[in-house]
Amino acid sequence: MKITILGNNSALPAFGRYPTAQIIDINEKLFLMDCGEGAQMRMQQFGIKSMRINHVFISHLHGDHFYGLVGFISSLSLWGREKELNLYCPKEIKEIIEHQLKWDLGFEIIYRIIEEGEKAILVDEEKYEISCFPVYHSVPTHGFKFIEKKRKRILLPNKLQEYEIPKYFYRHLAEGEDYEMRNGDIIKNEWVTQDGHPNKIYAFCADTRFAPEICEDIQNADLIYHESTYLEDNQHKATERLHSTAKEAAQIAKLSNAKKLLLGHFSSKYKDLQPFIVEASSLFESVELALEGKVFEI
Amino acid sequence: MKITILGNNSALPAFGRYPTAQIIDINEKLFLMDCGEGAQMRMQQFGIKSMRINHVFISHLHGDHFYGLVGFISSLSLWGREKELNLYCPKEIKEIIEHQLKWDLGFEIIYRIIEEGEKAILVDEEKYEISCFPVYHSVPTHGFKFIEKKRKRILLPNKLQEYEIPKYFYRHLAEGEDYEMRNGDIIKNEWVTQDGHPNKIYAFCADTRFAPEICEDIQNADLIYHESTYLEDNQHKATERLHSTAKEAAQIAKLSNAKKLLLGHFSSKYKDLQPFIVEASSLFESVELALEGKVFEI
Repeated sequence: MKITILGNNSALPAFGRYPTAQIIDINEKLFLMDCGEGAQMRMQQFGIKSMRINHVFISHLHGDHFYGLVGFISSLSLWGREKELNLYCPKEIKEIIEHQLKWDLGFEIIYRIIEEGEKAILVDEEKYEISCFPVYHSVPTHGFKFIEKKRKRILLPNKLQEYEIPKYFYRHLAEGEDYEMRNGDIIKNEWVTQDGHPNKIYAFCADTRFAPEICEDIQNADLIYHESTYLEDNQHKATERLHSTAKEAAQIAKLSNAKKLLLGHFSSKYKDLQPFIVEASSLFESVELALEGKVFEI
Repeated sequence: MKITILGNNSALPAFGRYPTAQIIDINEKLFLMDCGEGAQMRMQQFGIKSMRINHVFISHLHGDHFYGLVGFISSLSLWGREKELNLYCPKEIKEIIEHQLKWDLGFEIIYRIIEEGEKAILVDEEKYEISCFPVYHSVPTHGFKFIEKKRKRILLPNKLQEYEIPKYFYRHLAEGEDYEMRNGDIIKNEWVTQDGHPNKIYAFCADTRFAPEICEDIQNADLIYHESTYLEDNQHKATERLHSTAKEAAQIAKLSNAKKLLLGHFSSKYKDLQPFIVEASSLFESVELALEGKVFEI
């Protein structure tokens, strides 16, 4: 799983930083997480093949998370897209798109409206699963969890030969089944296979106040993205505007037992971002800035 | 008068080029001409103080000319703007903005709806005048003419002394009046002053098919911007889609007696823009590419 940062700034673009947008690549399936203004330009700059995006998730109805959406969809249409596009979003986004894009796009948009406070699995495929969970901001807002599912069990060639297991049964072994010999003896799966790779989890926590109640939804993630609009010196602003500080983001990473923390959604008042790392590192060891163009691999 | 190019590409952003947007600066008054997606980021990159923009002109209802508008207005509001903003546009733009920006912006938008085919003076101030004229595209579209008005007459100190003209009358001389002495003799204005600078004219011709009928509206401009979506090798596409080629843009520059031609709105099929200069130069001498970040001074 790879996460490419397209935009990491909060509402007002500043210092060359763009508003929120990320690409999540799970085995070459591309997912667009939020779509701030200029996201499509960023995709081009960073070599993202946007026609390969089939699912778009919008966390909430603040412009810095969706003002690039109408332009993005319009471009897909001009490029001749025919394949449907799945859009997971608040209902107002649907209204805005239908109000602006009245011509025949050439492809269908399949809307999945996310209701306030909803917790649900949105995409459930063999190799990945994507779900949403509520976070706590000034308007209804959701975080999203991207799971690359546990891989199949790994076959051990020596053991397969030793137990003389016929080839037709290998795929059942990969799924975890035991093998029953003609005489009724059982060859236990774990004798001839080993664990596949575990689930990989990326949790995008969107815009939120410090909310320990989200930790159960993002438990044990390999990587969490948590907003840190402010540093602790602006704690009052963070609290007042239902945003978080770098320190609070680090607390969530710690409480949820994340392996790594990605900080983003920086206020336009900060030119230098290094203090965000310093502040979060005092509480949680593995922290990185969600710098635009950077790719984080799990 | 200075023109800064924010975006020069046609519908689909490509090769790092952004959709149409320009800043026209007349004596430090800033005007925004079209507002494609990402225009506000470009303004930041190029050091444009966007809070100083009081007039915005939208040529037509194609997304690459206005998808940055909602984000731009939203940012003005977040920056705490209180001064009214004048918006000259098709009526659908008003509907889109009112549909999306439902909160109290903190400032008023004064709409001046431009009707199909309308030819009118939109802004008429002491030092500048801005008017619109129809061009010919697949939807109702307007070009805009920016005039920095002729400056006052320049006083000649030696002559003022020679004719003993009292100081109180200097400002009348600057306006072109003659001076009448007590004995009734007339001191002709041209004896004691010389011409001020002539009108400076910039004509933005928007998206249009080759349309010699616009020449009367843009006659004798110091600079015209004319779209050249295609080169002559794609003449059929230009004709079919009501766009122009570089050669056609040059013909308009020639027919309208422009001093200089600026080419833009390049199709995403062209990475190298030099052929646009070559093609147009064969017909019209003074041609430049509307490169992003470049400032053209009249």
